[in-house]
Amino acid sequence: MKTVDLNCDLGESFGAYKLGRDEEILGFVTSANVACGFHAGDPATMRRTVRLALDKGVAIGAHPGLQDLIGFGRRDMDISPEEAYDLVVYQIGALWGFVRAEGAALQHVKAHGSLYNMAARDERLALAIAEAVYRVDPALVLYGLAGSKLIEAGRRIGLRTASEVFSDRTYQADGSLTPRRQPDSVITDDDRALAQVIRMAAEGKVRAQQGEDIAIQADTICVHGDGVRAVEFAGKIRTALSEAGIAVQPVGATLASGASD
Amino acid sequence: MKTVDLNCDLGESFGAYKLGRDEEILGFVTSANVACGFHAGDPATMRRTVRLALDKGVAIGAHPGLQDLIGFGRRDMDISPEEAYDLVVYQIGALWGFVRAEGAALQHVKAHGSLYNMAARDERLALAIAEAVYRVDPALVLYGLAGSKLIEAGRRIGLRTASEVFSDRTYQADGSLTPRRQPDSVITDDDRALAQVIRMAAEGKVRAQQGEDIAIQADTICVHGDGVRAVEFAGKIRTALSEAGIAVQPVGATLASGASD
Amino acid sequence: MKTVDLNCDLGESFGAYKLGRDEEILGFVTSANVACGFHAGDPATMRRTVRLALDKGVAIGAHPGLQDLIGFGRRDMDISPEEAYDLVVYQIGALWGFVRAEGAALQHVKAHGSLYNMAARDERLALAIAEAVYRVDPALVLYGLAGSKLIEAGRRIGLRTASEVFSDRTYQADGSLTPRRQPDSVITDDDRALAQVIRMAAEGKVRAQQGEDIAIQADTICVHGDGVRAVEFAGKIRTALSEAGIAVQPVGATLASGASD
Amino acid sequence: MKTVDLNCDLGESFGAYKLGRDEEILGFVTSANVACGFHAGDPATMRRTVRLALDKGVAIGAHPGLQDLIGFGRRDMDISPEEAYDLVVYQIGALWGFVRAEGAALQHVKAHGSLYNMAARDERLALAIAEAVYRVDPALVLYGLAGSKLIEAGRRIGLRTASEVFSDRTYQADGSLTPRRQPDSVITDDDRALAQVIRMAAEGKVRAQQGEDIAIQADTICVHGDGVRAVEFAGKIRTALSEAGIAVQPVGATLASGASD
Repeated sequence: MKTVDLNCDLGESFGAYKLGRDEEILGFVTSANVACGFHAGDPATMRRTVRLALDKGVAIGAHPGLQDLIGFGRRDMDISPEEAYDLVVYQIGALWGFVRAEGAALQHVKAHGSLYNMAARDERLALAIAEAVYRVDPALVLYGLAGSKLIEAGRRIGLRTASEVFSDRTYQADGSLTPRRQPDSVITDDDRALAQVIRMAAEGKVRAQQGEDIAIQADTICVHGDGVRAVEFAGKIRTALSEAGIAVQPVGATLASGASD
Repeated sequence: MKTVDLNCDLGESFGAYKLGRDEEILGFVTSANVACGFHAGDPATMRRTVRLALDKGVAIGAHPGLQDLIGFGRRDMDISPEEAYDLVVYQIGALWGFVRAEGAALQHVKAHGSLYNMAARDERLALAIAEAVYRVDPALVLYGLAGSKLIEAGRRIGLRTASEVFSDRTYQADGSLTPRRQPDSVITDDDRALAQVIRMAAEGKVRAQQGEDIAIQADTICVHGDGVRAVEFAGKIRTALSEAGIAVQPVGATLASGASD
Repeated sequence: MKTVDLNCDLGESFGAYKLGRDEEILGFVTSANVACGFHAGDPATMRRTVRLALDKGVAIGAHPGLQDLIGFGRRDMDISPEEAYDLVVYQIGALWGFVRAEGAALQHVKAHGSLYNMAARDERLALAIAEAVYRVDPALVLYGLAGSKLIEAGRRIGLRTASEVFSDRTYQADGSLTPRRQPDSVITDDDRALAQVIRMAAEGKVRAQQGEDIAIQADTICVHGDGVRAVEFAGKIRTALSEAGIAVQPVGATLASGASD
Repeated sequence: MKTVDLNCDLGESFGAYKLGRDEEILGFVTSANVACGFHAGDPATMRRTVRLALDKGVAIGAHPGLQDLIGFGRRDMDISPEEAYDLVVYQIGALWGFVRAEGAALQHVKAHGSLYNMAARDERLALAIAEAVYRVDPALVLYGLAGSKLIEAGRRIGLRTASEVFSDRTYQADGSLTPRRQPDSVITDDDRALAQVIRMAAEGKVRAQQGEDIAIQADTICVHGDGVRAVEFAGKIRTALSEAGIAVQPVGATLASGASD
């Protein structure tokens, strides 16, 4: 039976600032990417989010980002591979503290925002991040954009990887996401988004903007959790996957059972 | 044979800012308290400091502080026990990341500055810190001011503890340090400081300011590393301890061999 | 005719984090306390908030706080008077930049959270803050808790001051606010809150918790803007003041016209 | 008589971290670029640096940088023109607070590190920065790399500008600095550096790396202040300028007297 993971960014509140509908979205996803305090999140939020995910039986991953709280880690910064290595080790460790304090274990690491995007296309950053993950714990699963340099780097370093796909973004013929500044980069129609994501999970294919079908590995689907509609849509994805006969489970469980990648 | 540990705060540089003579002082101490990025330190400095300590065979501890970089963690803040718990878990974890990436293990945790001082006298903060350490790893040794609430809390929680003494501070009849704003709180004469510290390590006694001898447990001696004179003085302590027939070794080794506390 | 000012904390968003119903509350208040980036606020938020206040004809004040974003400036910190001076000068200046860039002028300064509370009772902090305000611009009005050390310090330094009262807090016989941890410190009944605030503005009196009437100077009323109910209540205060024949206008206008204080 | 300004970055300490030989270098320069707390500097350092510069009769400028303390503002960030505008307004204002508190006035604004470099080549960032400076105070002088987009933008906006040259960097035929990663980008020989800078100030010419002489406007010379050798070299420049019959004075004084640009 085919399986797929549903992941969502969580724990993005900060001090008095609340963000996201963490408790609701945890009812739909199988893996949680928990912010680690650099682009979002703070120690109290991390503790609560870890506890919440464990209570809901959702696998936990570190979600390290650039040290840019004011920009939410979404502004590219010219960091060196060494700096990328350092900030990933630091943030995985920080989250590990809370996971360990709850007697649990980390499943994965998914870079956030600009760090994710830069590592998707820059081989040196990708290798630095993969090495950071590996050295902290070689059992961790590295998440990355399907077909990206980061997935490549993870495999080369010896990590298990999870190729991520997006329901609400269109793809180019080379497998990359259509840049946000281009027309039709974001899919706003729910039915179209659902159809795309089910096909990616079921057939490993997606229709590129150029009109041709391309192969795409869909180990995990990115789901948003910051709005009523986003949470509803996560529910729709789950229902659609179920109807398509695709099981939803954490990447770690799938990999452990000897499946793909 | 009597043993004692020599510990020093390290890794207090930040970005372009350099602080401390880490490489030199590592030649004299047996345990390093590595700053974790809240009151000082940054990911790159943490990586380098951990590597340096391992190269010199010095045991490594986390040195969590208040989130007050501008005040170097030396300004008391009215934090709740829960906030203390959270910031200690976070910072131990962050340092653990670098220690683990180098294939090593953490020996201890020593709170920094105001966090150390507040936890010495506030039982609720002390228990929160001790619980944080215990939940992250019950094998960690908790450092604290000899006779303080923090040492008490550590014991109650079930942690191994290391009672810390100061060579350059005078003591009150109740075992507390003479507050810095009082006269004769700091010992500036090297010979007097050496005599005090040797006696504490050898006999477990110190002459209080009030004139009477009091009992004090001296598992570890705090040594400074931020100046040529400080480094020289660390050397003098080592020589004096050796002459007094007291072995210098990390607290973890002493505890493992079944010694005191 | 009696007049009073209605002030509200604004511009407390930060990066991706939104806080407060600034646009709505600006329809009811006469003075805006704009966060300056230490406890809340960021440069973009400051620019937008200043613009918004000017568009609505609301007077603008700086709202400096402790450098504790994660604690929203609400945790007491042991800062020196010199540190208080420095952080107030810095933050007034930063907001002045945006006000000046819009061709406008600052009316007042109101310290935030713990800084406000500490300065209400600590004379040295109060004088340091008053001096900071005076040296940046002696024409600024200093807001402070009615009857506090801060109001006293402002007068001594030579500043115009605005004594602030709260509709939703009870008072002690000595004129101080009932500490939040005591019973009946917060007034949750709207009618009772309205009655108290109208009486303070109209008669300069408030019934203390101990049962006796005490004199209180009410130049400005603190209004909250972080919730639908808070905004509604601000509207009720305005209506009640109008019905009581009390004009609502910015403190600066009242002081300029030669009124009290 | 020809004149030139000597400027230096100052006030780059932060909390417990000390950087630069501010007091010594102030004996040689005519304009101080004071860090404003984003890439370096803190409120206390700003106050002290402003006071020190005034005592030495050195003109004061704001030195705004990217919000990247850990990277010292030297890592390019993908900020929008609006973000550049906001952070420049904020930082000029913050420094203005201290200057005003001392009863003095700001002379100029010089962007720091990556902000300076990005604005030298990116017209939209350059215009945003120039507009920020102009709106805060149209009397401020805008410093920028000679021949850069920033100088162009300043002129277009209506600001007085100061074209900056470097004694220790080589130039390309198009007037740009040789990128640091290329060979011979930095001039390490003092005599060669002195000869270049005197020629730029006296003749408005520099020999490009390609071998030809190019025209260059030298209103102000950048001098370093972070080392014994740097301070000594500043003294040498002053002596050499004096011997070449070139007067050294702040840019503001030169512009006020009706000189060039």
